[in-house]
Amino acid sequence: SNCFKCYRMAVCLSLKFDQDKEKPASVQRALSVLEMEVEQIKKGNYDHFMQKEIHEQPHSLTTTMRGRLKDGGILLGGLKEHLKTIRRSRRVVFVGCGTSYNAALAARPFVEELTGIPVTMEVASDLLDRQGPIYREDTAVFVSQSGETADTLLALDYALANGALCVGITNTVGSTLSRRTHCGVHINAGCEIGVASTKAYTSQIVAMAMMALAIGSDQISTQARRDAIISGLSNLPKNVSEVLKLDVEMKELASSLVDSESLLVFGRGYNYATALEGALKVKEVALMHSEGMLAGKPFVKGISGSCRVIEVPEVADCLQPVINIIPLQKNVFVMPVAAYHLTVLRGFDVDQPRNLAKSVTTQ
Amino acid sequence: SNCFKCYRMAVCLSLKFDQDKEKPASVQRALSVLEMEVEQIKKGNYDHFMQKEIHEQPHSLTTTMRGRLKDGGILLGGLKEHLKTIRRSRRVVFVGCGTSYNAALAARPFVEELTGIPVTMEVASDLLDRQGPIYREDTAVFVSQSGETADTLLALDYALANGALCVGITNTVGSTLSRRTHCGVHINAGCEIGVASTKAYTSQIVAMAMMALAIGSDQISTQARRDAIISGLSNLPKNVSEVLKLDVEMKELASSLVDSESLLVFGRGYNYATALEGALKVKEVALMHSEGMLAGKPFVKGISGSCRVIEVPEVADCLQPVINIIPLQKNVFVMPVAAYHLTVLRGFDVDQPRNLAKSVTTQ
Repeated sequence: SNCFKCYRMAVCLSLKFDQDKEKPASVQRALSVLEMEVEQIKKGNYDHFMQKEIHEQPHSLTTTMRGRLKDGGILLGGLKEHLKTIRRSRRVVFVGCGTSYNAALAARPFVEELTGIPVTMEVASDLLDRQGPIYREDTAVFVSQSGETADTLLALDYALANGALCVGITNTVGSTLSRRTHCGVHINAGCEIGVASTKAYTSQIVAMAMMALAIGSDQISTQARRDAIISGLSNLPKNVSEVLKLDVEMKELASSLVDSESLLVFGRGYNYATALEGALKVKEVALMHSEGMLAGKPFVKGISGSCRVIEVPEVADCLQPVINIIPLQKNVFVMPVAAYHLTVLRGFDVDQPRNLAKSVTTQ
Repeated sequence: SNCFKCYRMAVCLSLKFDQDKEKPASVQRALSVLEMEVEQIKKGNYDHFMQKEIHEQPHSLTTTMRGRLKDGGILLGGLKEHLKTIRRSRRVVFVGCGTSYNAALAARPFVEELTGIPVTMEVASDLLDRQGPIYREDTAVFVSQSGETADTLLALDYALANGALCVGITNTVGSTLSRRTHCGVHINAGCEIGVASTKAYTSQIVAMAMMALAIGSDQISTQARRDAIISGLSNLPKNVSEVLKLDVEMKELASSLVDSESLLVFGRGYNYATALEGALKVKEVALMHSEGMLAGKPFVKGISGSCRVIEVPEVADCLQPVINIIPLQKNVFVMPVAAYHLTVLRGFDVDQPRNLAKSVTTQ
């Protein structure tokens, strides 16, 4: 059953960088059962885990931030001791695959803005293929929902061997990623069962926003900007609830797209990652060819297609990726309604799409 | 006419970093006519400039290397005085758009390998959107065939304002890029008239290979590797001629793809850039949806399609991008034969595809 995955993840439970909740770090490796509310692994009134997890986002984002926004500042227990070292690093290297890579790409602009440290983006397998230069002065940030993505863990081994400070961003307490990194942030989004990641993506972005705020917290010149982002974070669950009400509009948009051969998703600046992640969702779930593109490239000009504007609540600019991906997530869910039934007839499942595993543990 | 472009480029002629040929640097801004053999701007026996330029590659690569591979070493007059500074830089930041970005991506692995300097890739417009951190210790390398790409030039202004050492890789002597950068390498590929860049792409890669060899030329540990690459460069024009003989195979492959809805091009390691550039060519010229992908991502597994192997000559691993793109370039040219006639009926042109200009001089 699907639930099995969640229990299996708990096998090698340790709480190395989960210091937020003031629990002692344990190095417990024996079989242990992850405590998890039963509702979390049931579909409830939803037809699919993916649908349920999309609608959980006001809640999952709240738990990601719980206890971490304190007195107008940010408290990340798992990073606290390493902030000084991170501030002096020559680069931040973000490493991930798929959705986790996209979340890091969404985080890149505000990490650069709030820390002043140049960010290099790396798809884990490509870093390994190139054996790209990694040095002691680098801070390498590894992003993986499961904490078990094979390429990401191999890239972690490589970065550790080269002396970089290694930070983990994961949803899974006790995962290999949280045990092997020097420090990190658990995103606490709750168990994600749908193979196409939705709530983990938005929580990863928020976790990295908090990380950027913590690294940059000693700068006077950016104090007002940090205050604005922290206030934006507080309002985020409410804004996400607003976006989730766009059901009718999204269904209409989706039905107008059902017969398309392929879908191009454009974005630039804060929404470049949204374009990539939206297209990835369409590929993964709707099994429709879709490509995310950086708007501004020459071939974007004059592409035909009707224009339709979906209004979302106004949020701090750098938090747009969290708000804007949600219509696309829902869209993906609604859009394949036609394609989906076809898919079901062929024996496939929206929660476990063809050729996809929840965490890719092989190369 | 098409030739006009070449002449127009000569208007602001200066030879700032073209020191390879031991000509004095001039700062001549008055109208001057670029000396150019008449054959260069005629189609000769070819139907299209793009076809002609694909077949010119053994020659264009030879001129790119002429006078620069000396006594088993590399001599790049335009870089010589700056090598020491580049060697001490904390990052190399490659900046480009479209095909030039892909060429830089193809060069990234050997630049990192031969210099040990971490490389960060930047699409020019995205760097500007993010106002990403650029510092005095960075070496920023700007790649543009025309030397007039608007976003690339704006990114250059931005990098100059932030104190980075700015290097230009361009095909156009006297272009804004060659005048405004601190130093650089002209690729000397000859006038490229077809809007879809072909010979400039391979010459850009070779120019950056020579740049990497020059930067790394003081390292004893990589001497054998450098020798192997230099010998590979000498044989490259011959190998490219071999690849160009694959006409029949490529026509067959192309005709088997004509009716496809879309085309996915996979590559990893040295061929990641080949995948992106191959897909870009299909998009630009065949007007068929195509996406280049890093193989190794989860959704690649199990994609259906028959397997067909095209054999190309063996070259030094890092020079594979030069050899492997050529079948794709030809493929692109042959594949749209069906789509092309359709296109012509609608009033379009293979040398000047819809919505594309040779150099994008607006944002």
